[in-house]
Amino acid sequence: MSDPHPEPPLHSPTDRNFFTLSWQGDVDGSLLLLDQTRLPHEETILDLQSPDEVIDCIVRLAVRGAPAIGVAGAYALCLATRGMTDREEILERLHEVAPRVRDCRPTAVNLETMVKRMMHSLAMTDVNTASGLDIRNHLLHLAQTIDQEDQDFCDRIGQSGAEVVPEGGTIITHCNAGALATAGSGTALSVLYAAWESGRRFSVLADETRPLLQGSRITAWELQKKGIPVEVICDGAAGSYFQRGKVDMVITGADRIAANGDAANKIGTYMLATLAAAHAVPFYIAAPSSTFDFQTESGQLIPIEERDEKEIWYPLGETRPEGKIRYGNPAFDVTPAPLIKGWITEEGILQPPFSEIRD
Amino acid sequence: MSDPHPEPPLHSPTDRNFFTLSWQGDVDGSLLLLDQTRLPHEETILDLQSPDEVIDCIVRLAVRGAPAIGVAGAYALCLATRGMTDREEILERLHEVAPRVRDCRPTAVNLETMVKRMMHSLAMTDVNTASGLDIRNHLLHLAQTIDQEDQDFCDRIGQSGAEVVPEGGTIITHCNAGALATAGSGTALSVLYAAWESGRRFSVLADETRPLLQGSRITAWELQKKGIPVEVICDGAAGSYFQRGKVDMVITGADRIAANGDAANKIGTYMLATLAAAHAVPFYIAAPSSTFDFQTESGQLIPIEERDEKEIWYPLGETRPEGKIRYGNPAFDVTPAPLIKGWITEEGILQPPFSEIRD
Repeated sequence: MSDPHPEPPLHSPTDRNFFTLSWQGDVDGSLLLLDQTRLPHEETILDLQSPDEVIDCIVRLAVRGAPAIGVAGAYALCLATRGMTDREEILERLHEVAPRVRDCRPTAVNLETMVKRMMHSLAMTDVNTASGLDIRNHLLHLAQTIDQEDQDFCDRIGQSGAEVVPEGGTIITHCNAGALATAGSGTALSVLYAAWESGRRFSVLADETRPLLQGSRITAWELQKKGIPVEVICDGAAGSYFQRGKVDMVITGADRIAANGDAANKIGTYMLATLAAAHAVPFYIAAPSSTFDFQTESGQLIPIEERDEKEIWYPLGETRPEGKIRYGNPAFDVTPAPLIKGWITEEGILQPPFSEIRD
Repeated sequence: MSDPHPEPPLHSPTDRNFFTLSWQGDVDGSLLLLDQTRLPHEETILDLQSPDEVIDCIVRLAVRGAPAIGVAGAYALCLATRGMTDREEILERLHEVAPRVRDCRPTAVNLETMVKRMMHSLAMTDVNTASGLDIRNHLLHLAQTIDQEDQDFCDRIGQSGAEVVPEGGTIITHCNAGALATAGSGTALSVLYAAWESGRRFSVLADETRPLLQGSRITAWELQKKGIPVEVICDGAAGSYFQRGKVDMVITGADRIAANGDAANKIGTYMLATLAAAHAVPFYIAAPSSTFDFQTESGQLIPIEERDEKEIWYPLGETRPEGKIRYGNPAFDVTPAPLIKGWITEEGILQPPFSEIRD
């Protein structure tokens, strides 16, 4: 921590009632990670010792959220060389593991960005003179920097956006863009936490977010821990709340934001954006600058992960229903920039072309 | 059956691969009913012998769909006097049971309409001279007429609407407005069945329809039985399909249609209507004239059933998640008339003010 006077852990907007992931120990340490698939009924902490365990957790969404999987990906590279000392073996191992970590989920850009950053930093290191241990310490230090940056960015996102939260209003959100989607206090929910801690009062509607129910499973759990009134609804019910004048603002996170501002986020987000537009309700995206992908011109070019069909049919029983039925499971959709009122980042509430954060 | 030459059961648009409900035997008979909550894995036929068993089935959605619960409600009154002979006791019993049947679900108007029709017919009968058995036979005959009318109306709805189904297109539907929502071939799905049997080819997207999954549970099951290509998606995924140009038409049923054309239907329908409007895709309602409530001026006046919160949190585990979390469960929403391109009824594709079917 660069701050010599950190806030007491239970009294800041970023107090960690929440545990997403945390490196434990030195360069031969391990990664503690909350298994989010067990929430809200069980808080199970996993002690991960290999990159493949991290990949497995990312793929099955034990850890999810674009910023959090970026940090997890960085730590996965640290675990890859656990116990190793030979420089050549370390480099070989890293080059073998990095692409697998980078590609284990395709839509969120943060995972790719952080793996690239780790490997790029490695290329910058004087690998001819550095010892194996030097290289490993260097990578762990960078992963911890990425982790800390994410925490700082979350707090700054909260501060950037708090002012737009309407006093006495109802804010709807989708999926989970909270502490558990990041290493810090969240993105969309960080905005709500900062507003709440500044004294503003409001209530939150949380879409349950089928198929994996991150809204009812995680967002509701986070909000009630903070004492913020929350009501969980089915995704299809959101329209009814808009129609009855019960929604004053929409805020979600994003997994990748194209150069023109189009934002990929959890499937169902575009439905909220369309409803918001039809009812003249402001729709905000909250995300750190690492979520912006200026190499991708528009949302149509963002790769969309199609996940296992079982996520669709599992509520009907143990086995796939008989008969010739397809199950479609795109994990993300793209909200076009014209439907987005503001992009809340650590640098403030931005508008295209995002010159404040464009390299 | 009034038709002396019924179609062979497996070769008409209304062939009954599907069994929703059927009276069995004479005036002391019983009501056979498919328990739709057990689909798609089990086809369980219940043999109901009392009105309270019918009410229970309606409340827990073992039978659902506005037309089907109208028919079930009529038969419930027949079961109410099973084995009784005394005229006074029969009348007393009917007046006790009728309001409970009528009110067991509030939104669909058909239940109220059919119970009223049964009781009104009773008032028209010369109860002073009719024997108890006469009264009971009269009511059973009327219930069977209501049942047959529903079957006929379903077929005519199909014929009315078949022409609007786009050849080679993809049609999205919500909840189940099929054979299992009626005593016949369905409403929205009857339109698709009639188009298919006339040789048109297309595919169907079925919203799974949380919380009770009538789309993945029932609609997909019906469509694959008919050999019509079907893909099940989460409700929140619909927007992604519209956005990618993969939806050519929307068709749903309705539970109550106000005099101005506003249509109450399963929660989530309004979301589809909003997406359809944003993408210039036509949105149709299909329903028999019994679904129109000309006493209710507009959709805002339609009573919306709020169902048990457990329907929202049950996917997370056996017990309610801890903490102060609300769960909102409105069972219906209202699609405003301006978003509806046509109201497909047994009298054709209508427009407000519906003079063809208004008394």
